[in-house]
Amino acid sequence: MTDRYASFVQSGAGRALVKRLGLPDPPRLRRHAPGDPLLPGPALLGAATGGRLAEQVGEILTAAGVELRDPAGVTGEERFGALVYDATGVTDSTQLRQLYDFFHPYARSVLPSGRVVVLGTAPDDCGSPREATAQRGLEGLTRSIGKEFGRGVTAQLVYVTPAGDAGTRTSLESTLRFLLSGRSAYVSGQVVRVGTGRAEPPADWDRPLDGQVVLVTGAARGIGAALARVLARDGAQVVALDVPSAGDELAAVVNEIGAAAVQLDLTAPDAPTRLAEHLASRHGRVDVVVHNAGITRDKTLGRMDVDRWDAVLDINLSSQERINDVLLERDLIPAGGRIVSVSSIAGIAGNRGQTNYATSKAGVIGLVESLAPALRDRQVSVNAVAPGFIETRLTARIPLGLREAGRRMNSLSQGGLPVDVAETIGWLAWPASGAVSGNVVRVCGQSLLGA
Amino acid sequence: MTDRYASFVQSGAGRALVKRLGLPDPPRLRRHAPGDPLLPGPALLGAATGGRLAEQVGEILTAAGVELRDPAGVTGEERFGALVYDATGVTDSTQLRQLYDFFHPYARSVLPSGRVVVLGTAPDDCGSPREATAQRGLEGLTRSIGKEFGRGVTAQLVYVTPAGDAGTRTSLESTLRFLLSGRSAYVSGQVVRVGTGRAEPPADWDRPLDGQVVLVTGAARGIGAALARVLARDGAQVVALDVPSAGDELAAVVNEIGAAAVQLDLTAPDAPTRLAEHLASRHGRVDVVVHNAGITRDKTLGRMDVDRWDAVLDINLSSQERINDVLLERDLIPAGGRIVSVSSIAGIAGNRGQTNYATSKAGVIGLVESLAPALRDRQVSVNAVAPGFIETRLTARIPLGLREAGRRMNSLSQGGLPVDVAETIGWLAWPASGAVSGNVVRVCGQSLLGA
Repeated sequence: MTDRYASFVQSGAGRALVKRLGLPDPPRLRRHAPGDPLLPGPALLGAATGGRLAEQVGEILTAAGVELRDPAGVTGEERFGALVYDATGVTDSTQLRQLYDFFHPYARSVLPSGRVVVLGTAPDDCGSPREATAQRGLEGLTRSIGKEFGRGVTAQLVYVTPAGDAGTRTSLESTLRFLLSGRSAYVSGQVVRVGTGRAEPPADWDRPLDGQVVLVTGAARGIGAALARVLARDGAQVVALDVPSAGDELAAVVNEIGAAAVQLDLTAPDAPTRLAEHLASRHGRVDVVVHNAGITRDKTLGRMDVDRWDAVLDINLSSQERINDVLLERDLIPAGGRIVSVSSIAGIAGNRGQTNYATSKAGVIGLVESLAPALRDRQVSVNAVAPGFIETRLTARIPLGLREAGRRMNSLSQGGLPVDVAETIGWLAWPASGAVSGNVVRVCGQSLLGA
Repeated sequence: MTDRYASFVQSGAGRALVKRLGLPDPPRLRRHAPGDPLLPGPALLGAATGGRLAEQVGEILTAAGVELRDPAGVTGEERFGALVYDATGVTDSTQLRQLYDFFHPYARSVLPSGRVVVLGTAPDDCGSPREATAQRGLEGLTRSIGKEFGRGVTAQLVYVTPAGDAGTRTSLESTLRFLLSGRSAYVSGQVVRVGTGRAEPPADWDRPLDGQVVLVTGAARGIGAALARVLARDGAQVVALDVPSAGDELAAVVNEIGAAAVQLDLTAPDAPTRLAEHLASRHGRVDVVVHNAGITRDKTLGRMDVDRWDAVLDINLSSQERINDVLLERDLIPAGGRIVSVSSIAGIAGNRGQTNYATSKAGVIGLVESLAPALRDRQVSVNAVAPGFIETRLTARIPLGLREAGRRMNSLSQGGLPVDVAETIGWLAWPASGAVSGNVVRVCGQSLLGA
């Protein structure tokens, strides 16, 4: 469960050896603690001619306590906590040169665990093929920067709808606060879309889930337990669910954070209605549903018995559908509610020995992408996270060689922690993030693996 | 330019050693030669309850000379050239079990270089979130099968629009003929969408480009030269373009295949109009435009001079846009015409030291995805291929360690050949493929790399 190599490398003796031998050099990542400043240094903010977001972004960052620098005013050897660029003004591939002009001089001036964020217009929202082409090109740039800058620096592309409403502004703020902070330590090379919809800023950005009732399935262990802790820290009233056989571990989690426990086997035919009745009677509603419960039962397809197929598909996918349907039918998820599902890189890329798991996790992506538009009118957002290699009890059991490969084959040269997945789900669960819907965000340190 | 390890492994002595030491075992891939049967053995064809395509697929395969087997009638140890499954009847995640039932007993009965093809309905075209979820799940299954089956077996998912017209039927046929044949040797783990549109079957499927005028840029070398040969073999009148400095090599290619040569520097401001005038006066039209010309100028962003940025963006992306615009303006691409662009895995995943290249190749994806709907009414299809590790002069210059990693990090444990990219572009260039538009098809042996 610990990455001893990374701990060694981050020690004094280890550092010297790593440099000498040219070994992988996993940086110590900046992670969030309440009260932390958003960035470890000032942000350099630039914009392409005609950009529509730079002013708004400047206001958001200033309000969040970030010191802003303008490329025109930078002198000497200054180092930056973030490079932020509004590329919405780029309407033709020849104008992409402006991004080179902005990033080239400062490519080596980003602090460790610094951030690169490029803002654009999603190709679907562009007015012409020329504009869509150039805006799609941004993805090649940010993904390359993520692979290139090193030292824990992450790079993201945020597409912001030009048909913006108040929700767009609020969710752009929540997204920037997430991506710039240590909360997004293990998120890199991602494309996030901010749309329109109901999104409400918190009274206090350090407690972005204040008063929200949040259901977490599979909360007794690993990512689920980390999630319960992060959500509670951020002000949520957590309803932590797991199977009765994990009752002791679940009790330990809820006692630690002051949450409510629900012991329930989600595969039981009456589980969704029992859960709905529980939520209705105890809380009257559920503002956020986090579908985290999941299992693996690996075998190659030719050797896989049918029980392995059925169990994985049922718990990881079908049970999510049944729960959503019942909670929505009974109107227990109010307007402004959020659903967050846990997918996996295996659902994106497929995996040997995981036909069942990958099918279920690809299905989760389908669920999110189809339910998001369907629930638009109800003002309920639906998103997924797709974890890569995360240090848990499960990955600790992977044979050493594969485990080391999984840990190092990403831009941050290390596995993520359960808290990294939890922070990402947390952001999607904030009332302020309601205009982010239909997204699948990988928490994988920009793993090389993909489709 | 040759993969000596693969040649060794495929020899008698090599095979024994590989087994003994557990080394990577790149299989010898089945590649197309005119007159070859579509498959090395019979196809097992199955369908989920309520599937709408099985009958049509049965007709297509029978007409193509494939022997069909029904799961009910299979006995003993029969081996199959392909497992083909119509999953369009699956409208709920619980019904995915039917795919397990079909594939599980035959997972180890597929011949070397055999094929797995699953047919479905694109999530966007589904009638409900439940159906979209299940149909999206298929992608996890086929991508996992591609990683699991080995021995040169490829696996694809083909989404066929339910709003089918005559073009849909023809392009489903062209797509199956491509995916089942040796033409698709290095294509695996892909999702292809067959829509509606103008698509015309050839008089002879062994000459699917008979009489078509096809422009190929960058035709003097590597993938471009292989492309000119493949297109000519399939009946096209090839117009092979390259820069004047590559004149000798270009002449050798066109002399070999009986093509026309055009020497032109595409970065010259008047290149598009000169090209248009040439095509108009010599050929009167251009049925297919293949944008293959491209360059790399690698450097990390901090060390990259502006000329490297400009040259790569201009040749790989902006010049494609300029040429398309002029040819379309002058109506030189007739109804039923096709545009095929060469993107790259770097455009999907980004790459260290290739911010310029990845931006340009991501832009190509944007070009294809935005131009395809824009040219729908003109009945012109637009698609891209994204090559992975292909054995060319360029990749031969990569340092040995990286080259070996690039070669082996895919489901086929080897690099592709230029002809593999050429065959894929060829399929997208066929008049029969006109209802395939807006696709980006990787030719990468299902490389692990992705986004």
